Amino acid sequence: MTFEEKLREYARLAVRAGIAVRPGQEVLILAPLETAPFVRLCAREAYAAGAKDVVVEWSDDELTRLHYDHTDAEACGRCPDGLAQRRNALAERGAAILSIRSQDPAALAGVDAAKPAAYIKALHAECAPFYKAQRSGAVCWSIIGAAGPAWAKAVFPGLPEDEAVARLWEAIFKTVRVGEGDALAAWQAHRRSFEKRIAWLNAQNFTALHYQNALGTDITVGLPENVRWAGGGSAAADGRWHFANMPTEEVFTSPDRLRAEGTVVASMPLNYSGSLVRDFRFTFHEGRVVDFDAKEGREVLRGILDEDDNARYLGECALVPATSPISEMGLLFYDTLYDENASCHFALGRGFVSAVEGGSQLDEQGLLAKGINQSDVHVDFMLGTKDLAITGVCADGRRVPVFVNGNWAEGVEG
Amino acid sequence: MTFEEKLREYARLAVRAGIAVRPGQEVLILAPLETAPFVRLCAREAYAAGAKDVVVEWSDDELTRLHYDHTDAEACGRCPDGLAQRRNALAERGAAILSIRSQDPAALAGVDAAKPAAYIKALHAECAPFYKAQRSGAVCWSIIGAAGPAWAKAVFPGLPEDEAVARLWEAIFKTVRVGEGDALAAWQAHRRSFEKRIAWLNAQNFTALHYQNALGTDITVGLPENVRWAGGGSAAADGRWHFANMPTEEVFTSPDRLRAEGTVVASMPLNYSGSLVRDFRFTFHEGRVVDFDAKEGREVLRGILDEDDNARYLGECALVPATSPISEMGLLFYDTLYDENASCHFALGRGFVSAVEGGSQLDEQGLLAKGINQSDVHVDFMLGTKDLAITGVCADGRRVPVFVNGNWAEGVEG
Repeated sequence: MTFEEKLREYARLAVRAGIAVRPGQEVLILAPLETAPFVRLCAREAYAAGAKDVVVEWSDDELTRLHYDHTDAEACGRCPDGLAQRRNALAERGAAILSIRSQDPAALAGVDAAKPAAYIKALHAECAPFYKAQRSGAVCWSIIGAAGPAWAKAVFPGLPEDEAVARLWEAIFKTVRVGEGDALAAWQAHRRSFEKRIAWLNAQNFTALHYQNALGTDITVGLPENVRWAGGGSAAADGRWHFANMPTEEVFTSPDRLRAEGTVVASMPLNYSGSLVRDFRFTFHEGRVVDFDAKEGREVLRGILDEDDNARYLGECALVPATSPISEMGLLFYDTLYDENASCHFALGRGFVSAVEGGSQLDEQGLLAKGINQSDVHVDFMLGTKDLAITGVCADGRRVPVFVNGNWAEGVEG
Repeated sequence: MTFEEKLREYARLAVRAGIAVRPGQEVLILAPLETAPFVRLCAREAYAAGAKDVVVEWSDDELTRLHYDHTDAEACGRCPDGLAQRRNALAERGAAILSIRSQDPAALAGVDAAKPAAYIKALHAECAPFYKAQRSGAVCWSIIGAAGPAWAKAVFPGLPEDEAVARLWEAIFKTVRVGEGDALAAWQAHRRSFEKRIAWLNAQNFTALHYQNALGTDITVGLPENVRWAGGGSAAADGRWHFANMPTEEVFTSPDRLRAEGTVVASMPLNYSGSLVRDFRFTFHEGRVVDFDAKEGREVLRGILDEDDNARYLGECALVPATSPISEMGLLFYDTLYDENASCHFALGRGFVSAVEGGSQLDEQGLLAKGINQSDVHVDFMLGTKDLAITGVCADGRRVPVFVNGNWAEGVEG
């Protein structure tokens, strides 16, 4: 396949598998300016799938940076006029939502972390119906990446810009199984492999997972009663299957928010809204972060932890083998969408309604009662290493190997 | 000056002379995607001038075209969610508004003219406070151009894309006096030249103008009582001087809407929202278009004329000498912003509050009573030729030459 054919195939995959557009539906695309040629292809594919209308909300790292540099914290804590109206109206009418990312990891380096934090807080408050429609499965949504010059230069710092962009595109295509034959069929096979692993995990019904490696991670994370694992896509409220993240290699659930004990050491840097955090660790007691440190970006971590009352509790634990295609590429993408699929990870903040039976019918209090954390924050960080061991603890005290040396233990089919 | 220096100087000119940004003010920039590098320079200059915040509303010809091709007329007659909220809120807080254009003249070729017409109608209805703030001088606003590939290829059809874009940028710089010394100073001198011609026209106090040329134009256009001429910029409500169009070479006013008699033959094609009209003419009786024809795009003209009750009456007559820099370049820009400054022109639709003393204090009925047309439409078309004669008619019947052979008559200082 030529580059142009792969790009079109990727747009088709995003529209058909990512957001599963149905005839008559509206589509909202969120995208950075430098991805415009790809956005136009996605719009064409969306109309070809029967979309009624396609609306694009553009962003630009340089303009965002200028905004943060020249406006005070109060102004940063306001949504731009009309943004919430657009997002909420489209989500309430059931629009499919495609988020395209291409972020320069250093875009906000040196910006006072309080400013983007204030913005994200305002965004979540004013666009609450928009975010709720995605979390609850009322609409199909998907997050995908597209190569832009600044991001490409960060991933391939030694290469000239054009070459770096071309290399990043090829890496992206590989992560989403575009380039050899029918990508939609490849994703159907991918889905079936997930279903087997999830069936095994659900059958084990572990009450906790114990993580250990030489980097210093030694933590036991409790799981909610009758925990449900997910991965490889999800069904929206109307039954349509869609992949909310592309790529996705993780099998995941939410831990019991009050039962994490021990220390976890990050195995990769964290890029949070354009700010980098390196060499960091968290210590948990009764589920809560009681200590933390970082060689770089400690204040960024503090900002996340203090964002709301429950930002210090875990919302996600995800299992990704060291043999995943993304892990084997050995690239640091500086973007959680990719990097989380190269490594086992946790997330601080909000948990998933899918982690307990009937979770999507529960309100915030109901979910909290089941141990599913509730927060405006959801920040992934990586802990997987090639020597990571994960042991499942059963209700009767039996201990079952889940991961050995960074990969699925023998006997876990996929 | 290098290209980059000229581009920065142009951005500075747009911000300081076009929208006259004052410290603490918000700025709204409307721009096509392909002008992003220039938009970022404008944002930098706006912050440098003390802007409190800069918001950009992006557009894209290809996505607009896809929208019109795939959505029905009903959907086309709706503003995108949030757009009116953004525009109206910013205008009501006194934001400066910079519109950057770079339109492919063939972008909408073949699109059912009813669709863009329905959209423009919805836009004017829902964004009424936004448009009113500009018309009334409550905010400073400016319309400028920026070279993009599609537009450049239309202006220079024989050249490779890169070269066409470079040539169009140089042409734009020339029209806005950027490239030799301090462009802001050049615009101050330009303003003084306008003031002399306007003083002469106001002193004559013509009751009508008679236009004649060999192309077939023979029309007399009445002027309102104590007509006021304008040009070369205007003062906003707070006294700040700004140039609403850059370039601008025209001295203009509004005719008495009920006193046009005769036929006017267009001397250049009209590009209306991406549709081209060629070789067209209008015949007026008692101010109203009673007959019209076009070799190409007749239905586009009909759409304009039928848009509302007063779209068939004139709102503007503007005087531009054949020796204007833009006229002498001999380029057809396919954009009214430039082409209207190469040629004497009229506009159908809305007239100017500046055409009569105290006009900005009058409501629609008051303006209509003074002969100033009121409409949602304002569409310029060119009639200037190298043999155009314009004769002023005084209250006492005296006839005074205003234009001879396409240029200001001898004795009109500038």
